[in-house]
Amino acid sequence: MSASIDSSRLHTLHNFRVVLCQTSHPGNIGSAARAMKTMGLQHLYLVNPHSFPDAHATALSTGAADLLENAIVTSTLAEALSGCAYAIGMSARKRGLSHELVNVRTAAAKAIDIASTQPVALVFGTEMSGLSNAELDHCQLLAMIQANPDYSSLNLAAAVQIMCYELRMAALEKQNLPDDNLSPNARPEYATIDSLEAYYVHLEETLLHIGYLNPAAPKKLMERLRRIYARIRLEKEEVNLLRGILTLTVTPRKHDKY
Amino acid sequence: MSASIDSSRLHTLHNFRVVLCQTSHPGNIGSAARAMKTMGLQHLYLVNPHSFPDAHATALSTGAADLLENAIVTSTLAEALSGCAYAIGMSARKRGLSHELVNVRTAAAKAIDIASTQPVALVFGTEMSGLSNAELDHCQLLAMIQANPDYSSLNLAAAVQIMCYELRMAALEKQNLPDDNLSPNARPEYATIDSLEAYYVHLEETLLHIGYLNPAAPKKLMERLRRIYARIRLEKEEVNLLRGILTLTVTPRKHDKY
Repeated sequence: MSASIDSSRLHTLHNFRVVLCQTSHPGNIGSAARAMKTMGLQHLYLVNPHSFPDAHATALSTGAADLLENAIVTSTLAEALSGCAYAIGMSARKRGLSHELVNVRTAAAKAIDIASTQPVALVFGTEMSGLSNAELDHCQLLAMIQANPDYSSLNLAAAVQIMCYELRMAALEKQNLPDDNLSPNARPEYATIDSLEAYYVHLEETLLHIGYLNPAAPKKLMERLRRIYARIRLEKEEVNLLRGILTLTVTPRKHDKY
Repeated sequence: MSASIDSSRLHTLHNFRVVLCQTSHPGNIGSAARAMKTMGLQHLYLVNPHSFPDAHATALSTGAADLLENAIVTSTLAEALSGCAYAIGMSARKRGLSHELVNVRTAAAKAIDIASTQPVALVFGTEMSGLSNAELDHCQLLAMIQANPDYSSLNLAAAVQIMCYELRMAALEKQNLPDDNLSPNARPEYATIDSLEAYYVHLEETLLHIGYLNPAAPKKLMERLRRIYARIRLEKEEVNLLRGILTLTVTPRKHDKY
């Protein structure tokens, strides 16, 4: 397969960003960049890396130094996800929450579908403890590598390698298959993460207003609501519809005939 | 999944050996051992390693030091393959030879089939140049990771990781384990269709009340909302939560501190 054929056929892979949160060891950033590039991914985002740029990262990236040079460093996960339509959190274990949990192969098939039109993020937590619950709240799907339950400690770059490999396989497979029934025009426009966040803010304000959310005892109400809506890919129009309901919840309107 | 279930169901993985030929960097041996163990493989063979045992190998193996301790060092590939029924050579590129060349997913399916009864070897060449033609002559099948043709330089341990991952996935598939690894107890209790319908009725009444739904011109509002919630697969508890919001939308409550 020539380079030019690859880049035109697998352009979908350019619609992914790998987001590494709070990475402790700069060497892992370099190895992750190398892993990404071997699979044709190129956009690397680093949320509060412990040390970057760093000579260890550059050394381990070998031929993928360009990904490090173009890496975007942010101070929050929300910034790193800005503009994405979908965020997949990577987890090494089951979490006690109701995020939809799938294996990375299933996640890759879903992600490739979305990335054909809009940016998708793969979010990796720290080497020691993975993603925090607060970070997971920014994700719509939780993906797990089905590792040996007796020893599931994959190196960060190894996890990046497998996920990017599955994306490449899914992209290749998609190219070999006849197009699905949806024409590009029939694909809905999904809400961006930014507009979802704005919806959650609006929802929280409204729940405070009607007294469902007690600021003195918020419990986990907003987390539970986020998990409900995170499980579907809300379309742009649907977010508008839901926000319309919130607006009228605070200021009801009477129709003539009503 | 408990360890005992895993080891009995996936015993096929114990019938594999990973054979590393002339490995230059001992760190790569350690990382490869870790990659193997995360996927449930345990038998490591080293043909003329540059340095072994070595502190770098041990350091990078982390929790997989047992694989290094039990590793078998040989001076020829033939010795390392002794007793195997099948040997798969890993290649980063097409070779001008008449070996059958398949991608690693296809190779894994075939290998799992054979390994259910007999030992199978996965043979990896040196970091710089891969397997020699003489080494390839010991293999029955050539497997390739479909990497980015512009940059196909996978780290040795990364290649081991992907191949072992594909073997594990093939073994799981063969065993027909549920792909999400969830035990029945961990599955949430989903809302019944009846309670969903009751939620929709409650939602419609509320939207009429706040004036969002105009009975004179309902358009397709309820259909669109149903479409949103139908995609979520709501749990029983979540329906209760959403109905709680509707109740307070109609009759707000004031908290003491609010």
